[in-house]
Amino acid sequence: MLTNQIKVIAFDADDTLWKNEDIFVHTQDAFVNLLLPYHEDAYIREHLAGVQINNLKHFGYGIKGFTLSMIETSIELTEGRITGTEIHRIIELAKQMLAYPITLLGNIESVLNTLSKHYKLMVITKGDLLDQEGKIARSGIAELFDYVEIVSDKTPAAYEQILQRYEISTQNFLMVGNSLKSDILPVLELGAQAVHIPYHMTWDHECVDEQTLQGYPDLVTIEDIEQLVGLLSTTDKEKVCDEVI
Amino acid sequence: MLTNQIKVIAFDADDTLWKNEDIFVHTQDAFVNLLLPYHEDAYIREHLAGVQINNLKHFGYGIKGFTLSMIETSIELTEGRITGTEIHRIIELAKQMLAYPITLLGNIESVLNTLSKHYKLMVITKGDLLDQEGKIARSGIAELFDYVEIVSDKTPAAYEQILQRYEISTQNFLMVGNSLKSDILPVLELGAQAVHIPYHMTWDHECVDEQTLQGYPDLVTIEDIEQLVGLLSTTDKEKVCDEVI
Repeated sequence: MLTNQIKVIAFDADDTLWKNEDIFVHTQDAFVNLLLPYHEDAYIREHLAGVQINNLKHFGYGIKGFTLSMIETSIELTEGRITGTEIHRIIELAKQMLAYPITLLGNIESVLNTLSKHYKLMVITKGDLLDQEGKIARSGIAELFDYVEIVSDKTPAAYEQILQRYEISTQNFLMVGNSLKSDILPVLELGAQAVHIPYHMTWDHECVDEQTLQGYPDLVTIEDIEQLVGLLSTTDKEKVCDEVI
Repeated sequence: MLTNQIKVIAFDADDTLWKNEDIFVHTQDAFVNLLLPYHEDAYIREHLAGVQINNLKHFGYGIKGFTLSMIETSIELTEGRITGTEIHRIIELAKQMLAYPITLLGNIESVLNTLSKHYKLMVITKGDLLDQEGKIARSGIAELFDYVEIVSDKTPAAYEQILQRYEISTQNFLMVGNSLKSDILPVLELGAQAVHIPYHMTWDHECVDEQTLQGYPDLVTIEDIEQLVGLLSTTDKEKVCDEVI
């Protein structure tokens, strides 16, 4: 149950506003195909996942780091026998990912239009700076947001810094996103509110185990972003509709 | 000549607060050595520079993009004959760059300490988000800055957005940096002030031709950051010393 004090709604971008994981999965499939002459499918995926997680501390989130991890994996799994031409194919995959057209999810534009009448709207996303900026610009919905924040990781400290920067109290802040690990739990930890909208596919690294979830019995989950409008109205309809900031 | 209305001083980070280009040059030398069996020194450098500039639109500034450009160059210049092991060496070079210890320039700490008594201090830097954050954290001078802004490119629009975000008027803003192209000209274009401190080496891409410079006859250049304190004092000493924001 949400309170009626919300003034700012922040949205995760990838897999909340638009499709993203699909593109990573698609690229990963192409990468696995490239290495199938050397190893079995599952073994390639497992190794890539390990390299990727290990490289997060060096490269952070985003396509460039993922690409460097694919290249590193390809070299390790072929004991250096992978050819320059095959590695060039991996760089081409990266450039395709970076230019991928944006596919908005559901009725996102109409939902944001409705909400923008009553709330300040924000994007909080993590990844490569230029890539995330490019996606927001190409999305066609950039002007619906009052603020955009691109962070290197979505920790409680990162959210706290954003709230401080815009002088937003935790009770006035709602985060909406598909990742329990990045969008929901760190925000709840700060004492702010969050609504989870699961996406049909989730990167393992973003998954949260059942035991951790049991610590959050009041977790608010909806299936579709359209339900957000109804959810906010039922908290205290009159209050919400009066609230123009 | 600077005016006495300055309230916020923003510093570029790489090659203004600490050494950076040296690390790129060092890595580039190692990269050239790797390819010397295939091509001549100058030809390798020229080709890398071309790939790097062409890739800026895909990858943006920073070590990850530079690394992908080195890999791409190595494949192109060897017509795919470069080995996986050699490419792995390039990824290792990237990881070394990302972990390089920070070497502050000159008396930067004491200068910032003095200035922080009279002005709000800011860092404005471009590059990879996680890398730039890491450098600021490792620098030991992070707490001297009131604000840190990491941008994908230093255009007039990027500066304008920062000034708007913090509600800073152009007449109250001074930018200090080593790159005429990124730190000085876009700021002067906005009508704010800028002080140029050349670094002993500059990436070609950041250079500005003589003709462009002739459009800025009042360009303020100093040799060492310590001169900044004197320069600000002479604008209107009493005013500056009174000014605690």
